[in-house]
Amino acid sequence: MEAELGDHAWVRAMLDFERALAHAQDAPDVVVAIDALVPDPADLGRAAPVSGTPVVPLVGAIRAALPPDRRAAVHRGATSQDVVDTALSLVASRSLRPILAGLDAVADECARLARDHRDTLITGRTLGQHALPTTFGYKCAGWLVAVHEAADGLRRARDRLAVQFGGAVGTLAAAPADVTDRLAADLGLAAPTLPWHTDRTRIAGLAGALGTAAGVLGKIAGDVVLLAQTEVAEVAEGAGGTSSTMPHKHNPIRAVLVSACARRVPGLVASVLSAMAHEHERATGSWHAEWRPVTESLSAVGGAVLGTRELLSGLVVDVDRMRRNLDLTDGLLLAERVAAHVGADTVAELVRAGLPLREALAARTALSEHEIAHLLDPAAYTGHAGAFVDRALAAHRGRTRP
Amino acid sequence: MEAELGDHAWVRAMLDFERALAHAQDAPDVVVAIDALVPDPADLGRAAPVSGTPVVPLVGAIRAALPPDRRAAVHRGATSQDVVDTALSLVASRSLRPILAGLDAVADECARLARDHRDTLITGRTLGQHALPTTFGYKCAGWLVAVHEAADGLRRARDRLAVQFGGAVGTLAAAPADVTDRLAADLGLAAPTLPWHTDRTRIAGLAGALGTAAGVLGKIAGDVVLLAQTEVAEVAEGAGGTSSTMPHKHNPIRAVLVSACARRVPGLVASVLSAMAHEHERATGSWHAEWRPVTESLSAVGGAVLGTRELLSGLVVDVDRMRRNLDLTDGLLLAERVAAHVGADTVAELVRAGLPLREALAARTALSEHEIAHLLDPAAYTGHAGAFVDRALAAHRGRTRP
Amino acid sequence: MEAELGDHAWVRAMLDFERALAHAQDAPDVVVAIDALVPDPADLGRAAPVSGTPVVPLVGAIRAALPPDRRAAVHRGATSQDVVDTALSLVASRSLRPILAGLDAVADECARLARDHRDTLITGRTLGQHALPTTFGYKCAGWLVAVHEAADGLRRARDRLAVQFGGAVGTLAAAPADVTDRLAADLGLAAPTLPWHTDRTRIAGLAGALGTAAGVLGKIAGDVVLLAQTEVAEVAEGAGGTSSTMPHKHNPIRAVLVSACARRVPGLVASVLSAMAHEHERATGSWHAEWRPVTESLSAVGGAVLGTRELLSGLVVDVDRMRRNLDLTDGLLLAERVAAHVGADTVAELVRAGLPLREALAARTALSEHEIAHLLDPAAYTGHAGAFVDRALAAHRGRTRP
Amino acid sequence: MEAELGDHAWVRAMLDFERALAHAQDAPDVVVAIDALVPDPADLGRAAPVSGTPVVPLVGAIRAALPPDRRAAVHRGATSQDVVDTALSLVASRSLRPILAGLDAVADECARLARDHRDTLITGRTLGQHALPTTFGYKCAGWLVAVHEAADGLRRARDRLAVQFGGAVGTLAAAPADVTDRLAADLGLAAPTLPWHTDRTRIAGLAGALGTAAGVLGKIAGDVVLLAQTEVAEVAEGAGGTSSTMPHKHNPIRAVLVSACARRVPGLVASVLSAMAHEHERATGSWHAEWRPVTESLSAVGGAVLGTRELLSGLVVDVDRMRRNLDLTDGLLLAERVAAHVGADTVAELVRAGLPLREALAARTALSEHEIAHLLDPAAYTGHAGAFVDRALAAHRGRTRP
Repeated sequence: MEAELGDHAWVRAMLDFERALAHAQDAPDVVVAIDALVPDPADLGRAAPVSGTPVVPLVGAIRAALPPDRRAAVHRGATSQDVVDTALSLVASRSLRPILAGLDAVADECARLARDHRDTLITGRTLGQHALPTTFGYKCAGWLVAVHEAADGLRRARDRLAVQFGGAVGTLAAAPADVTDRLAADLGLAAPTLPWHTDRTRIAGLAGALGTAAGVLGKIAGDVVLLAQTEVAEVAEGAGGTSSTMPHKHNPIRAVLVSACARRVPGLVASVLSAMAHEHERATGSWHAEWRPVTESLSAVGGAVLGTRELLSGLVVDVDRMRRNLDLTDGLLLAERVAAHVGADTVAELVRAGLPLREALAARTALSEHEIAHLLDPAAYTGHAGAFVDRALAAHRGRTRP
Repeated sequence: MEAELGDHAWVRAMLDFERALAHAQDAPDVVVAIDALVPDPADLGRAAPVSGTPVVPLVGAIRAALPPDRRAAVHRGATSQDVVDTALSLVASRSLRPILAGLDAVADECARLARDHRDTLITGRTLGQHALPTTFGYKCAGWLVAVHEAADGLRRARDRLAVQFGGAVGTLAAAPADVTDRLAADLGLAAPTLPWHTDRTRIAGLAGALGTAAGVLGKIAGDVVLLAQTEVAEVAEGAGGTSSTMPHKHNPIRAVLVSACARRVPGLVASVLSAMAHEHERATGSWHAEWRPVTESLSAVGGAVLGTRELLSGLVVDVDRMRRNLDLTDGLLLAERVAAHVGADTVAELVRAGLPLREALAARTALSEHEIAHLLDPAAYTGHAGAFVDRALAAHRGRTRP
Repeated sequence: MEAELGDHAWVRAMLDFERALAHAQDAPDVVVAIDALVPDPADLGRAAPVSGTPVVPLVGAIRAALPPDRRAAVHRGATSQDVVDTALSLVASRSLRPILAGLDAVADECARLARDHRDTLITGRTLGQHALPTTFGYKCAGWLVAVHEAADGLRRARDRLAVQFGGAVGTLAAAPADVTDRLAADLGLAAPTLPWHTDRTRIAGLAGALGTAAGVLGKIAGDVVLLAQTEVAEVAEGAGGTSSTMPHKHNPIRAVLVSACARRVPGLVASVLSAMAHEHERATGSWHAEWRPVTESLSAVGGAVLGTRELLSGLVVDVDRMRRNLDLTDGLLLAERVAAHVGADTVAELVRAGLPLREALAARTALSEHEIAHLLDPAAYTGHAGAFVDRALAAHRGRTRP
Repeated sequence: MEAELGDHAWVRAMLDFERALAHAQDAPDVVVAIDALVPDPADLGRAAPVSGTPVVPLVGAIRAALPPDRRAAVHRGATSQDVVDTALSLVASRSLRPILAGLDAVADECARLARDHRDTLITGRTLGQHALPTTFGYKCAGWLVAVHEAADGLRRARDRLAVQFGGAVGTLAAAPADVTDRLAADLGLAAPTLPWHTDRTRIAGLAGALGTAAGVLGKIAGDVVLLAQTEVAEVAEGAGGTSSTMPHKHNPIRAVLVSACARRVPGLVASVLSAMAHEHERATGSWHAEWRPVTESLSAVGGAVLGTRELLSGLVVDVDRMRRNLDLTDGLLLAERVAAHVGADTVAELVRAGLPLREALAARTALSEHEIAHLLDPAAYTGHAGAFVDRALAAHRGRTRP
C-alpha cells in the first residue's frame, strides 16, 4: 500500500487539488507550472510545522515557478484545509481501489471454497467445544456474506468522499460556487451539500467501514489459525511460514499477519471518532489528529486484504481430517439429534453412563442398529447448511462491483 | 433511555423472541405461557453465569409453566445465541426510535436556527483565532447537514438489524428454514441472508453509526461551550446550570453533558470492533463482550440527543454581541478581502504599522472612505453563506423520516 | 462488584466526603445530620442534570436537615468537583480491596498449579503449532509473574488515589490549607501535592493499571479456552457451563466470561485517557466523561478477577492427555534438539522423507536406539522450565500484600 | 524522533541483540561479522512476510558472512521473538531518552512560568465561565506537577523494559540461564524474573505511561489554545503559525500540533492493551499487532514533548490582558467572596438587580466603599495559590532525574 499511502501519494493528491483548482478557474499557466513541479516530500515535511500543514510551502513552490503577477492565480479562494481534506479524500479513494479489488478477490476465494466444499462435513464448534456437524462450505459462505458487507460498507464510504472547497471559514468568500462541482468532476470525488471542513462524518464513516472490514478479515484469519492448530489440522497454508529454529514448523503466518493487521484498526477508529468535534470553523488539534489514524487504518486493512487473499487462494483443506475429527467424541456430536428422538433426559443419562453413545443407544434403547447409524450420521444432520451455501453463492453471483 | 435499555427491556426482548418463535411454530399454548410470565431480571442475572447468558433460566421458567409433554415446544430449534442476538437487535432497534426521533428534532432546531439567523453575522474562527466573517445561520446549517448524515447512518444501521435464528451451530438443524422469515415479520426486524451468529457486521455497523452520531452532537455541544465562554458570550443556555458555590454562574451545563456523553462513545466503538473475530461457530468471549459497549453506546448517544435537543431549543442567541465581537480586531478580520484589493504584501505592511486597519488604509492607500468602509464591512464578505444555508434547508425539507 | 460500584456506593462516598469535611472543620452538628441522612440515589440522579452532578441536591438535602444559621457549615470551602473527585477516589479504592484480594488469590492458585505441575510435561505451542516441550507448571508460573505485576500496578495506582479539595478554582479560597491533610487521614486517601482537579494522572494511572490487569487475566482465560478445546482437552473447568440444547457439552464458561470482561477494558481505558485535557480550572465535558468508563473498568476487572479465581481453583488438569498430545507429531516436537545433534539440514531432509522422526533417525543416521530415545524424550528437553518455576514461586513467597 | 524509531533504529537494535548474544556466548568472530554488517531495512522488510518478522533474513545475512562451521554460533539458543522483543525494549528505551530529557525541559519551563507568575492574577474558569480569580503561576504549577507524574510514570516503565531471552517456547532449552543477565548488562536493560514472551505487562505499562504523558501535554496545549483565543488573548506563541490566506493571523500552531499528537495516543493504547492475551507460548497475531501502536505512541509523545517545550519557552504572557479580563464581569468574579460576607441569597438578589456588583453593593448594603473595594479585589481572593506554587516549585527542585 506504500504507493497509495506514502508521502509521495499525499503530495501528488495535494498537487492534483491545486491543479484542478487552477483548471476550474481557467488558469492554464498554473496548470503547466504544477505539471512541471516535482516537490520533495521531505522538504515540505520540514517546512510543515511552521503552519501545521505542508500547504504553505507547496503553494509557495508553485508560485515560485510563476511570474509575480500570476502568483495570485495559484490556490485562489482556497485555504490549507481545502487542500488537505481533498487530498485525504483522494488518497483514501485511490487506496480503496486495490483494497476493494482485493476484497472482491477475497470474496471470490470464499465463494470458490464454499462451492467446492458445499457438502464437506466439518465439526461445528462453539466456545471451543464440539457442538454439532456443519459443513466447511457453510463456514466459508459465512465468511463470504460478511466480506460482501465489508465491501459494501467501504464502497458506501468511498462514494461519500468529497472534494472540500470553502476558503478560510467555509463561506467560499473568494471564489464562485460552481468551482466545487468542477473540482469534484475533475477529481472524481463527490460534490458535498456544503463544504465539510467541520463535518467529519465522511471521515468517521470511512473509519467505521475500515473497522468493519478489519473485523471481517480478522474473523477469517482467526478461524484459519484455529483450524490449522496441530491438534486440529483441518487446513494449512499452502506455503506456511518458516521458523528460525524449528525446521518442521508450518506456521499459518499469513493468518497471523492478517490477524495482527485487523487488531490494530479498532483503536485507530477510536482515534478518528474522538477527533470529530472540530471547533468553530477549524479545529485546534482534532483535524491534524485525523491523518495518521486514517492512513494507518487504510494501510492495515490493505495489508489484511492482501494477506487474506493469499491465505485463501493457497489454503490446503484436509477433508479427511475434517471427517475424522467429527468422530472424536464418539457420537456425542449428535447428542442434540438423538435427544430429539429419545428425549434430552435419556441422552443425559446415556452420557453419564460413560459408554460411547453408539453402544449406549444399542444397550439401553429399542433403536435398531440402522436407526442408530442414521441418528449418528453427521451428514444427515447439517440442517440447511447446503441451502445456505446456495443462497450465499446466489448473492455473490448477483453482485455488481461499481 | 433506561426504559429502552435496562434489564427489563432485555428480558422483554428475549421473551418476545421466544414468543414469536412459538407463534411461528404454531404453539399457541407456549405463547399463552410466555404472555403470563413476569420474570425478575435479578433472578435471571444470578443464574446467568452458569451458562453465560440468562437464556437457560429464562427458558426453564417458561417450561416450568407448561405440562411436561409441551416443554419441548419451547425454544424449539433455537440456541441461546439466537435469543440474545435477536434481543440485542430488538433492544437496539427500540432504543433507536427515541434516538432517531430526537435526532430529527435536533435537525429541526438546527434548521430553525439556520433559517432565523441566515444573515446574522458572526466571527468565523479557525484554530481559535478570528479569521473571516461568516453567519451564525451557516454555522447551524453545518450542524444540520451533519445531523442529517448521523441520522441516515443510524437508520441504515437500524434497517440492517436482523433476527438471528440458526440453532446450535447456525445450520438450523432442528427447524424449518421459513421460521426465520416469520420471526422477522413478527418482530419487525430484517431477515438476513444467512444466520449471522459469527458475522458481526451488523453490530459493528451500529457501533460505527453511533460513533458518528456522538461525534456530530459533540461538535454542536463543543461550539456552544466555546460561544458561551464569558469572553465570547454570543450564546447562552436558556436555563443554564447552577453552581454549588457561585450564584452568578450560568453554566452551559447541557452542552457540557452532551460533550461528556459524546466522549464516551469512541472507546466503546473500539471495544465492539475489537470483538468481531468470533471463533468458529460461537465466540469464546467476544460475543459476551459486545453487550455492554453496545448498550452503553446507545445510552450515551440517547443522552446526547436529548441534551442537544434541549440545548438548541432553549438557546439564547445574542446577535448584538456577535456583531460587536466582529470588530474586536479593528478590521483585521477583513484582511483577506483587503489583500485581494491592495495585495497581500501591502496588508502585511499595514498590519506591521500597528494602526487599526481602517486608519492605516486611509493613511497609506488611495482608497476613498466609502471604499474602505465597504472593504471592511463584514456583511459584504460572507461569500456564499446565505446560499449554503438555503441549500441545507432545502435538503432538510426534502427529507423523509422512515 | 455491585455493592462497591453501584449508585449507593457513590452516594455513600460523597456523604463520607461531606462528613469528613464537616469533621475537619469542627462542625459536629453537620456530622450528626449527615449520619442521619439516607438519600435515595434515584432522587439525586433525577436532580443531577440541572447542575451536572448530584452534589447540589445532596448538599441541599444535608442543609435541609439543619437550622438555617448552620447551613453554611455544610460543604464549606468545597466545590462539586471536590466531592465527586474524592468520591471517585473512595469508590475506586474500596472496590480495589476485593479486586486486590482476588488477584492475590488468583496468584495463589497460579502458584499452586505451578508447584503441583512443576514437572508436568506439556506441549509448547507457538502460532498455534506444536513447537517444543515445556511444562504446565512453567506455563502457570508465567501467569503468576504477570499477575504479580498486575497487582503491583493496581496497588501503585490505589496508593496514589487522593483526596481532592480545592474549592471553585482549586485555590482553596474559602478554607484553611490543613483541611486537606485532615480529610486525607480521615478518609484513608493520599494527600496530593496540589489539588488535582485538572491533573488527571491519578485517574489515567488507575485506568492503565486496570487495562494491564484485564490483559493479564484475559491471557490466562485465553490459554484455558485453548487447552480446553475438544481436540486438545488438557484442562477442563471443574463445573463447566451447560448448553441450552446440547446436554453433553462442558463449556469453559468461566474462561469465556473472564475473556469477555477483559476485552471490554481497553476501549474504556482509551475513553479515560482521551478525557485528560481538562480545560482551564474545570473541564467542559471531559470530567463528566470519566465516571462511567472508570466504573465500568473496575466492574469488568472485578468480574474477571472473580471468574479467574473460580476458574483456576476448580481447574481439572489432565496430565495424561498433556503427555499424549506431546506425541502427536511423532517426534517432530524435538526437531530443534535433534537438529543440534545432526544438523538442521539433516533434520529438514528427514522431515521431507515423510517417515516418523524416530524411524527416520534409525534408518538414516548412525544414532543408537538409546540415543534416539533420549533425543526424542520431551522430559529431557524442557530447558530451565523447572528452575524458572522455582524462581517464580520464590518471588511469590517473598511478596508482601499491603 | 525518526532517528530513534525508524527502520534503521529497529535494525540496529536487532543487531545489538545478536551481537550481545554472541558476546555473551563467547563468539568474537560473530561479533566481528555483525559489526561489519550494514543491512538494508527495505531488503529485510521485503523478506519479513515469509516468517512474519525480519529476523530470519537478518540472521541469514549474519550467517552468510561467516564460514559454514561457524554459522550455528549465530542466534544460538534464541528465537525470533527474543530478537524482536529485546529490540522493542531497546528502541523504546532509546527513544525515551530524548522524550524524558524533553519532559524535564518542559517541567523546567513550567517551573519558570510558575515562579515568574507566582502572583500574576488571572481569571479562573470553570465550564468555560469566569468563576474566581487565581494566578497564572498556579496554573503553570498545576501543569508542572502533572508533568512530574508523567515523567515518573515513563521512567518507571522504562526501568522495567527488559531483555527477552527464552528460546522457542521460553524454556531456554538451548542456552545457559546466565546468558540473560549478561545480555541485560550488555544492553542496559532489566533482567526479568522469567522470560516475558507472553507476559506483556511491560509493553502495556509503557503504553499506559505514554497515554498519561500525552494527556498531560494535551492539557497544557489545550489551555494555551483557549488562552490564545482572540477574545481572551492572555498568551500567544512567540512565533505563531502563518496562514496561507490571512496575513494577520497568529495561530497557536505549536499548541494545535501538540494537541493533535496527544489525541492520537489513547486509541493506540487501546490497541496495545487489547493485544495482551498472547496465546500459549507465542501469539497468533497479538504479538505482531503491538509494534506499530507502540512505535506510533512513542512518536506522538515525542512530537508532543518537543512541541510543548518550544511552546512554553517562547510563550508570550500578556499580564495586563489577564488583569483586564478579570474585570469583564464587573465584580461577579468575586461573588463567592461577597456571598461569604453578605449571604448567598443577598448576592443572588443583587445579581438579579442587574447593576454592576460594585454599585449594587453600594446601593443596597451597608458596606463602606473601602470594604467593597477590598471585597471585590481579586488579588485578595486567590486563596492558597501562592503557597501551592511554592510547594510545586519545592517538589521540582527536589527531583532527581535518573
